[in-house]
Amino acid sequence: MTFMEKIRAAWRSNNSLVCVGLDPDLNKLPGCVQHLPRPIFEFNRAVIDATADLVCAYKPQAAYYAGQNADEQLRLTIDYIHENYPDIPVILDVKRGDIGPTATMYAKEAFDRYQADAVTVNPYLGMDSLQPFIEHRERGVIVLCRTSNPSSGELQELVCDHKTIFEHVAILARDKWNVNNNILLVIGATFPDELAKIRKLCPDMPFLVPGVGAQGGDVKKVIENGATADGIGLIINSSRGIIYADNTENFAAAAAAATDELRHTINQYRKNHKS
Amino acid sequence: MTFMEKIRAAWRSNNSLVCVGLDPDLNKLPGCVQHLPRPIFEFNRAVIDATADLVCAYKPQAAYYAGQNADEQLRLTIDYIHENYPDIPVILDVKRGDIGPTATMYAKEAFDRYQADAVTVNPYLGMDSLQPFIEHRERGVIVLCRTSNPSSGELQELVCDHKTIFEHVAILARDKWNVNNNILLVIGATFPDELAKIRKLCPDMPFLVPGVGAQGGDVKKVIENGATADGIGLIINSSRGIIYADNTENFAAAAAAATDELRHTINQYRKNHKS
Repeated sequence: MTFMEKIRAAWRSNNSLVCVGLDPDLNKLPGCVQHLPRPIFEFNRAVIDATADLVCAYKPQAAYYAGQNADEQLRLTIDYIHENYPDIPVILDVKRGDIGPTATMYAKEAFDRYQADAVTVNPYLGMDSLQPFIEHRERGVIVLCRTSNPSSGELQELVCDHKTIFEHVAILARDKWNVNNNILLVIGATFPDELAKIRKLCPDMPFLVPGVGAQGGDVKKVIENGATADGIGLIINSSRGIIYADNTENFAAAAAAATDELRHTINQYRKNHKS
Repeated sequence: MTFMEKIRAAWRSNNSLVCVGLDPDLNKLPGCVQHLPRPIFEFNRAVIDATADLVCAYKPQAAYYAGQNADEQLRLTIDYIHENYPDIPVILDVKRGDIGPTATMYAKEAFDRYQADAVTVNPYLGMDSLQPFIEHRERGVIVLCRTSNPSSGELQELVCDHKTIFEHVAILARDKWNVNNNILLVIGATFPDELAKIRKLCPDMPFLVPGVGAQGGDVKKVIENGATADGIGLIINSSRGIIYADNTENFAAAAAAATDELRHTINQYRKNHKS
């Protein structure tokens, strides 16, 4: 099953466009997991078990594992999802971007070492830096287009031939990079007008949308401007708003409640949608 | 000592602008190290011992360690350089680019976990994605500007307000991001004309120049177009051309010979340079 098939199936079976970002900062984990031998993995496992019927994907952010010397706990987390919830795809958020031979090694990291179903990548180096990911036809390759952070406009909003750089990325993704039909785009929820523009350029391409929750993106606008004609097409990520919903031993139930609330909020804005 | 001071001192003390890229692919290592328990580290150690008086920096490429499950051997390699050759700075080539809180974790990875003196970063997300690196004043932050790979022009050559995207990056780096005087730029040796343009924009900023050797960049043009007025200002990286100079038990001596040859070739083109 390809990533594209897997995400479409998960959207429908869990009736959810919510992706939970697994970005565990050791300093913010509840006291009850802090003393465990593998606190990050145990925290993730509890969040996953509590939310697996409410999400369309999980997205571990590699930096939290790399920065906290927790590569093994990242592997355990992804293995745990595959073994226990094989229908939920895992997006490894790494935002890699490097020359061909190096990108080949990064593809090995994401797809062989960590067995991710999809990976995020940076478009700044162009096609040959994406090729080693793209050629894994069954995996998803999610290209940064318009990111959710405050400074994203410094380069992304520059205008060339009446189109912004992020529009150029969307067009390259659509016309040149999507040879294996496994490309998606990252569009931040904090820029809903841009989301509408890019949806017009790429009517059917799935988008990964970070920036609701802690970053303040407006869910209603995200759905209205970003969903495909059939009311899906979005993987809406929330990390901090879900995993830190509660800081006591009740954290997993609180994460589930926050996930379900976001799912419900999203679903009420989806066109022709039956709850 | 800051990275900038360290690299300037190493340029002079070793009379060298050569940076050796430590990008060890297990499949390409000589048979004599393949059977060792930590083959990548042992290979690196031999190359380092043979070349430490001929280089201005080492640049391990993180992908080769991440993709081959060799994080520990990366740490050992960097520790080995710091302990035995404390005057040679280590550039960790990771090309990170992510939103603020995530970039903070990546800065922890590069500077705390691996103790790199400098790190490469991707500019696509703008200032707030670079800030967590920049605020480590004593470390170097090396921003991708014009990369050496064939597709680099897809975005980098787009023209906005009569300037290419890579020129915009150079100007942002010079005027906005360099608040702590610790920014450098990556300019591929495969684009010597662009190197000249960017040197004009940033007369004093050090550049990391990959792409000589296996990628075919012309050393003479790199020096003529890229050196600062005092004949330095460049960190010229070669990886495959040096570390795979020989595939027998003679690999370290061959790496030293290739390094010295590149150093000599570079030095003969440096202005006012005494060998």
